[in-house]
Amino acid sequence: MDDASRFIPLARGASFPLANRLERVIWGLCWLLLARFTPPALHRWRRLLLRLFGARVGAGTRVHGSVIIWLPRNLVIGKGALIGPGARLYNQGRIDIGDHCVVSQRAHICASTHRANDPGFALELRPVQIGEGCWIAAEAFVGPGVTMGAGSVLGARAALFEDSAAMAIYRGNPAQRIGQRDWSEPR
Amino acid sequence: MDDASRFIPLARGASFPLANRLERVIWGLCWLLLARFTPPALHRWRRLLLRLFGARVGAGTRVHGSVIIWLPRNLVIGKGALIGPGARLYNQGRIDIGDHCVVSQRAHICASTHRANDPGFALELRPVQIGEGCWIAAEAFVGPGVTMGAGSVLGARAALFEDSAAMAIYRGNPAQRIGQRDWSEPR
Amino acid sequence: MDDASRFIPLARGASFPLANRLERVIWGLCWLLLARFTPPALHRWRRLLLRLFGARVGAGTRVHGSVIIWLPRNLVIGKGALIGPGARLYNQGRIDIGDHCVVSQRAHICASTHRANDPGFALELRPVQIGEGCWIAAEAFVGPGVTMGAGSVLGARAALFEDSAAMAIYRGNPAQRIGQRDWSEPR
Repeated sequence: MDDASRFIPLARGASFPLANRLERVIWGLCWLLLARFTPPALHRWRRLLLRLFGARVGAGTRVHGSVIIWLPRNLVIGKGALIGPGARLYNQGRIDIGDHCVVSQRAHICASTHRANDPGFALELRPVQIGEGCWIAAEAFVGPGVTMGAGSVLGARAALFEDSAAMAIYRGNPAQRIGQRDWSEPR
Repeated sequence: MDDASRFIPLARGASFPLANRLERVIWGLCWLLLARFTPPALHRWRRLLLRLFGARVGAGTRVHGSVIIWLPRNLVIGKGALIGPGARLYNQGRIDIGDHCVVSQRAHICASTHRANDPGFALELRPVQIGEGCWIAAEAFVGPGVTMGAGSVLGARAALFEDSAAMAIYRGNPAQRIGQRDWSEPR
Repeated sequence: MDDASRFIPLARGASFPLANRLERVIWGLCWLLLARFTPPALHRWRRLLLRLFGARVGAGTRVHGSVIIWLPRNLVIGKGALIGPGARLYNQGRIDIGDHCVVSQRAHICASTHRANDPGFALELRPVQIGEGCWIAAEAFVGPGVTMGAGSVLGARAALFEDSAAMAIYRGNPAQRIGQRDWSEPR
C-alpha cells in the first residue's frame, strides 16, 4: 500500500509540553500515594486533593480512590455526583460532568482522538459535556466530542459516539436510543 | 432540564446493611491474602475458601485466583466449570452457573442494576442463570436478569441483555444470534 | 439439554506442552521485573528484552512496559510502531503487526479461540495480521484469524471479527465499515 507507507505517526515527538508532563507526573504520584488506597468514605479528602490540582468539584460529589484522571485542571464536576470505582476520565480535552450524575464502575470518558486523515496522526482535543442527572453505567464508553443531554442514560458496556437526547436511554456499540426515561411513573 | 434536576441518586445512603458490608470486607481480605496470588493449580484450595464463605461450588470446578466475586453466598457453580483469570461475578443478585460452563478471562456477569425511571436510583437485584455447558468468551458481558440456555455461546466482547436460546451462538453489543452450535459434526 | 451435557471442556488437560509453559513463566517474570515498571522512555531496553525472548521488533518501535504479551516468540512487529499502555497481545497464535502501526491503550489482539462445535472445546490457533499503518484505537478488540488491510482504522472499543479493507475505517461491535481514510486532504 503506497498510501499507508506515508503514515508516520510517531515523527512529531511528545504531544504535550514539558510543564504539562511534569504536572501530570506530580499529580499521578500524589493521587497514588494520598488517595488511591484511602477508604471509600474519605470523599471529602479526595475532593480537596482534586481541587488543589485545579479541578472544580461540587459539594457532596464522590470520587472513588481508584478513579483515573488524566489532568484535574481539565475537569469540572457538579454537586452530588458519583464517579465510581475504576472509572477513567481521560481528559486531555476538558470533561464537564453535571450535578447528580452517576458514572459507574470502570466507565470511560475520553475527550481526545487523533486525526485519521492526517498522516502525522495529530492529536485532537474534543471536550465532553455530560448534562446534569445523567447515568453512565458500568464499563460504558463516552467518545470524544460527545454532549450528553440532561438525564440521559448510557447502558452498561455501551459506546456513545454521538450526542444523546435529554432523558433518553441508549444501549449498544455504537449506542442507539432504545427508550425514554420516565420519572413520573416510578415502578 | 427540570426533570433531570429531580435526580438525586445519592440521597438514600448505603444500599446494603452493615452486616453485609462487613461480610464483604472480610471476604475481600481473605480472598486477597489467601487466594489472589496462589498458583493456578490450587483450585481445590480456592474451592474450599469459596465454600467456607457460603458459595456452592461443584466438584472439579476451577476458579482462578484473579476472579473477582462480590459475595460468595450469592454464588452457585456446578461441577467441572471454569471461571477464568480476571473474570468478574458481580453477584449483588444471585448468579447461578451450570455444570461444565466456561467463563473466559475478564468476562463479566452482572446481576444488579438501578431503576432508570426512579429519581432515587433504587438498586434492583436481578439474578442471572447460566445453563450447563455455556461458554462466555473473553471479555464478554452478561447483563442483569439474563438466563442463558444450556450450551449457548456468547462471543468475545459481546454484551447480552436478553435470554439466549439453548445451543445458540451470540455476538456483538447488544448480542445477536449468529448461529447454532452443532456437536454432531466436529470440524 | 442432552446436548449440552456432552460438553466436557476440561477433560483434556493443558493446551500447551511443559516447555512452552516454562518459557512463559520465565518470560512473565522477566518482563515483570525488568520492564513492567521501567520509565516510558526506555523503549530501546524493552525492545532488547523482547528480542532476547524471540520477538522480531523493528527499529524505533515503542512497546510500553504495561503491555501484556503471551509469548514473544509468536510476535512480529515492524518498524516505527507503537504498542500503547495496557495493550494485550494474546498471541497463542502468531501476531504480525506492520510498520508504523499504532495499537492504542488497552487494545486487545487475540489470535486463538476454541471450537464451539467440539464438545472437547479444542483450542484453535488463528494468526492475526495487521497491515502497515493501521490504527487500532483505545480498548478495541481484534479477533482470531483477522487480517487488517494496510492503513485501516478500528475505532475505540470496536470489535473486529472479519478482515478490514485497506484505508477503511471501522466502528462498533461487531465492527462495520463507516468510512474511508483520506490522506490527500488533511483537515
